[in-house]
Amino acid sequence: MVNTPNCYALVRGAAEGRTRLNAFDLALLNAGVGDTNLMRMSSILPPAARQVDIGEVVLPKGGLIPLAYASIDGTMPGQLISCAVAVGIPEDDREPGVIMEFEDHAPLSNVEEIVRQMVVDGFDYRNRKLREVKSLGIEHKVERCGSVFAAAVLWYL
Amino acid sequence: MVNTPNCYALVRGAAEGRTRLNAFDLALLNAGVGDTNLMRMSSILPPAARQVDIGEVVLPKGGLIPLAYASIDGTMPGQLISCAVAVGIPEDDREPGVIMEFEDHAPLSNVEEIVRQMVVDGFDYRNRKLREVKSLGIEHKVERCGSVFAAAVLWYL
Amino acid sequence: MVNTPNCYALVRGAAEGRTRLNAFDLALLNAGVGDTNLMRMSSILPPAARQVDIGEVVLPKGGLIPLAYASIDGTMPGQLISCAVAVGIPEDDREPGVIMEFEDHAPLSNVEEIVRQMVVDGFDYRNRKLREVKSLGIEHKVERCGSVFAAAVLWYL
Repeated sequence: MVNTPNCYALVRGAAEGRTRLNAFDLALLNAGVGDTNLMRMSSILPPAARQVDIGEVVLPKGGLIPLAYASIDGTMPGQLISCAVAVGIPEDDREPGVIMEFEDHAPLSNVEEIVRQMVVDGFDYRNRKLREVKSLGIEHKVERCGSVFAAAVLWYL
Repeated sequence: MVNTPNCYALVRGAAEGRTRLNAFDLALLNAGVGDTNLMRMSSILPPAARQVDIGEVVLPKGGLIPLAYASIDGTMPGQLISCAVAVGIPEDDREPGVIMEFEDHAPLSNVEEIVRQMVVDGFDYRNRKLREVKSLGIEHKVERCGSVFAAAVLWYL
Repeated sequence: MVNTPNCYALVRGAAEGRTRLNAFDLALLNAGVGDTNLMRMSSILPPAARQVDIGEVVLPKGGLIPLAYASIDGTMPGQLISCAVAVGIPEDDREPGVIMEFEDHAPLSNVEEIVRQMVVDGFDYRNRKLREVKSLGIEHKVERCGSVFAAAVLWYL
């Protein structure tokens, strides 16, 4: 069994690349997590997890890093692509929080409003008291082949 | 390296939500795994893994939980959505079993018949003797934005 | 936290099956990783990771195995499906390498050329010196329901 992570960082990046995967890879580098092996998970914040800056934690090069992320790419010049993550912190820090992800061909303001409401809804149907919603997103106008990425990275202090 | 899990639980859930991700999140809660970080894997039952009820194991809040799952969502009112998992138990308990997942806009009876046959096929081309097929699925008629989820969750006793 | 893997194997497989998931499952068996639980990750080669043949490492039956993979399936008789992975080895073995994946309804020669260029690009925008690119791919002409799979499997020596 893998230990439950006890900290998290919100990160984001955007990039153009020659292929969709290269654009995504470069967006990960921009976000500060590009030389790791990201393992996507469904998206709960462990109880009392502490927020850190991505620069405060040492992610091993090539290490296996759990995260929740939103991402979208596009190849139509001029098209907007946006994605965002939101994290809901519970009043009771013995309870887990909720992480939501959303992406769309739309302005970031729309996407971030939706992802924040998704967290509010996630607390509502859990009957859990919400202390605070934190969100981070990114918007990019596609030139040739663009990608955006926003994530809650979980790790250990 | 992560230890190989030694038990599994079959779970299922269905829900309506304001967004597809919220409906999925609520389906996970209905299934009893909603406050964990699910990590999807390709789908083998470890040798001699013991079946448990999801209530018998303690999944850490926010913990990293490996699983194989089927899921489908829909936004057309009145539309049927169904998904199911099936697990094949080998005669020889030193051999691994096979987990299959299937989902469709169709009645559960069709989906479950297909997923059970997928397990039979998986044993056939492995030339492995099959003792038993266990399956679990769920069907839902979409109201506005519905999601169904069925999974084999792996964990440790 | 999970230890960072220190070796990798390049593998590939192709198969026909009664369903898309069965074809994929059988392609995994052909590749020598079919009785494990594969966990997909974004795709970095840990520093100084040693290349091994898949037969040299012991993958536990039902074990949780991290990997990066390309895969594509098809159900149009006569259609070509191809996929490939490429691994870039850095000059400085304290640095991580880059793994890229690509798949298309196209001849393998095209797909493999693209995935190798993706690695070159990944080193370029990292300003990292590239020692060597290794690639492995597979092409299959669909009969009824075919799948191809190529991967860089990470593990421990």
